Amino acid sequence: MILAEIITIGDEILIGQIVDTNSAWMAQQLNMIGIKVKQISSVSDNEQHILIALDEAKSRADIILITGGLGPTKDDITKHTLCKYFNTTLRFDERAFAIVEELFHKRGRTDITETNRKQAEVPLSCTVLYNTAGTAPGMWFEKDGKVFVSMPGVPFEMKKMMELDVIPRLKEKFKTPAIVHKTILTQGIGESFLSDMIETWEDALPAYMKLAYLPQAGMLRLRITAMGDDKNKLQPEVEEQAKNLLPIIAEYIFGYEDDTLEKLVGNLLRKNKQTLSTAESFTGGYISHKITSVPGSSDYYIGSVVAYDHRIKTGMLGVGEESLKKYGAVSEETVREMALGVQRKFKTDYSIATTGIAGPSGGSAEKPVGTVWIGIATPQTVITRKYQLGSDRARIIVESSLYALNMLRKALN
Amino acid sequence: MILAEIITIGDEILIGQIVDTNSAWMAQQLNMIGIKVKQISSVSDNEQHILIALDEAKSRADIILITGGLGPTKDDITKHTLCKYFNTTLRFDERAFAIVEELFHKRGRTDITETNRKQAEVPLSCTVLYNTAGTAPGMWFEKDGKVFVSMPGVPFEMKKMMELDVIPRLKEKFKTPAIVHKTILTQGIGESFLSDMIETWEDALPAYMKLAYLPQAGMLRLRITAMGDDKNKLQPEVEEQAKNLLPIIAEYIFGYEDDTLEKLVGNLLRKNKQTLSTAESFTGGYISHKITSVPGSSDYYIGSVVAYDHRIKTGMLGVGEESLKKYGAVSEETVREMALGVQRKFKTDYSIATTGIAGPSGGSAEKPVGTVWIGIATPQTVITRKYQLGSDRARIIVESSLYALNMLRKALN
Repeated sequence: MILAEIITIGDEILIGQIVDTNSAWMAQQLNMIGIKVKQISSVSDNEQHILIALDEAKSRADIILITGGLGPTKDDITKHTLCKYFNTTLRFDERAFAIVEELFHKRGRTDITETNRKQAEVPLSCTVLYNTAGTAPGMWFEKDGKVFVSMPGVPFEMKKMMELDVIPRLKEKFKTPAIVHKTILTQGIGESFLSDMIETWEDALPAYMKLAYLPQAGMLRLRITAMGDDKNKLQPEVEEQAKNLLPIIAEYIFGYEDDTLEKLVGNLLRKNKQTLSTAESFTGGYISHKITSVPGSSDYYIGSVVAYDHRIKTGMLGVGEESLKKYGAVSEETVREMALGVQRKFKTDYSIATTGIAGPSGGSAEKPVGTVWIGIATPQTVITRKYQLGSDRARIIVESSLYALNMLRKALN
Repeated sequence: MILAEIITIGDEILIGQIVDTNSAWMAQQLNMIGIKVKQISSVSDNEQHILIALDEAKSRADIILITGGLGPTKDDITKHTLCKYFNTTLRFDERAFAIVEELFHKRGRTDITETNRKQAEVPLSCTVLYNTAGTAPGMWFEKDGKVFVSMPGVPFEMKKMMELDVIPRLKEKFKTPAIVHKTILTQGIGESFLSDMIETWEDALPAYMKLAYLPQAGMLRLRITAMGDDKNKLQPEVEEQAKNLLPIIAEYIFGYEDDTLEKLVGNLLRKNKQTLSTAESFTGGYISHKITSVPGSSDYYIGSVVAYDHRIKTGMLGVGEESLKKYGAVSEETVREMALGVQRKFKTDYSIATTGIAGPSGGSAEKPVGTVWIGIATPQTVITRKYQLGSDRARIIVESSLYALNMLRKALN
């Protein structure tokens, strides 16, 4: 097994100013190509501390990936420290400087200073990884059969460099196992119940396949990972296992890999040349926000009425004063009338409506905080469903929005 | 200076399944009480690896905080490894078991297994930190003048334990300096411009005060941190410096500490007994979502029309077909009519309207992606403003929503 370590340099993480999202992303990328991450460390902008961290990592791993400390200011000491560690000196790199110049030019600036010029200096003994998204070049060193790669800490720049340069070079340099992943997205069932349901299937997985449960608000992702020598052999085997899983939990599966409910719903509506509107009470615009976060959603999404006040439910959506009084705002009758009201008013094929109690106040013994009604109007009928969703306001809003989108997806299928 | 290290145990972080948000939060808490974090490490569920990490951390720091690996399953080995490290054995703790029993009882379960019972076992030589939010107890060890604390990895449980137990004990055990923070929230000015404006003020800060720039989407936070012996002396000194800063950048400041624009706007509306509605085009419900994320927002927020399709702008909001044709949907005239339309229709004192091009498509040479108009209708007038906000769809939506809320805040003041 090829082992890697990730070292993050800089004080922002150590004072808690930023969360280190880079390392998780890098670990994912390494895992995808069969490299195991042994340790992740964040160390301060201090030469001695960095040198020790490099030595410790080298004693445990084959690959050491370093991010951060490559900026132009004087507290960015990674480059000088690497020169010391690899016993080399800096040289000026013309191509790296051309990248700096081009970036300044693009931003309409001509004031390249001596400090900016220093960005183009690189250690003599390294292979330069040219930055396609910023000014600081990356550096690839080899020592005693181990690889050290230094990259900028800016997530966008690091990711580009990993994808275009580091990952391909690592795959070339090291004989890594073939890895195949398959992610199955489910909703409407908890981790322990699902795990009970698929126990027999899971126990029968071959030893070279593993299953991971990845819970998220409003959904649970299942990831099958297979490891072996031949990707072309593994791929159909994983598909076969996923196919065997399907009949057991089909009703809970809504998608695969990077699917999102808002994209799936959008694709179905576009394919059918149909339109959608929403009428939101307690979700307060969150469903509309999710739908419109998808580029091109104006092809099928017409708009929404956020009916936070009862007067909007009656005035704009045509919910009857009587049924509002008789059944209450949080009721099957009201959500049905809201769904029909916005569908009619916005002249759409489908609509989503929500009404509920997000709390912390507004609950009662009969209808506690977390009581939620969702309605989906289709060209033929209205589908309604009640959920009871705990007591955390933000979570109630997010979860019921995902449940509503999934109800619509099922209606569209 | 008292130094700390944070060690996170578990494979979820090393395979990139979860981002380590715990460490940043813990680092913040330690910083607040004047303890500096020297290194943060994530290591695997492997005894030898954990033992080495503990030794390395002990060689550098006075305090070692450990999270994770305390669950009931067999891959959670932290407790056994700590017994080995401190040369002690496990004992059964009655109070820790009572906590397990109570939690099972609360969830209506009676099936406490042998595995669950083991959650109540603790090393003989530690001080037990009882969990107020879960089952696994925390552990406090002392060795050679150094403190080791092991806590659950579940963020909610760890945070409770830090706040109720660990931080107070650390303050008692170590003589830490007094620290005072003051955070000033600004909007509408970039980091480098702001830094130029306040250079003279910043250079005149006493040596024991530091300024940090904390940029976020749509805002820039400034944090003054003072360190010394006497909190009662530092507090007024920090306030004095903040007061001196005020006249230089008053127009950009919108709040302090944990203020958010949606809360500030809500408080002003509630105080004035006034109401608000919104008419959103490209922001697609995000402003409405921010406003309704505040508990109690139904006191002043009436609702929204998300007018994604032009027909909704004309039909529901009364935007003139003519002006829409003459000036286009993304124009000052349209945003003004949208703001007035929803204010009139929803009978509110104030309204917010947005129209713009979030991309990636829909831009033109004259109105490129990122062109945004915001309108605020007040009881007296309509305030409009144009922004040009880059090309990232998600960022354009978030930033313009915050700009819109800040325009309303200014109008309310």
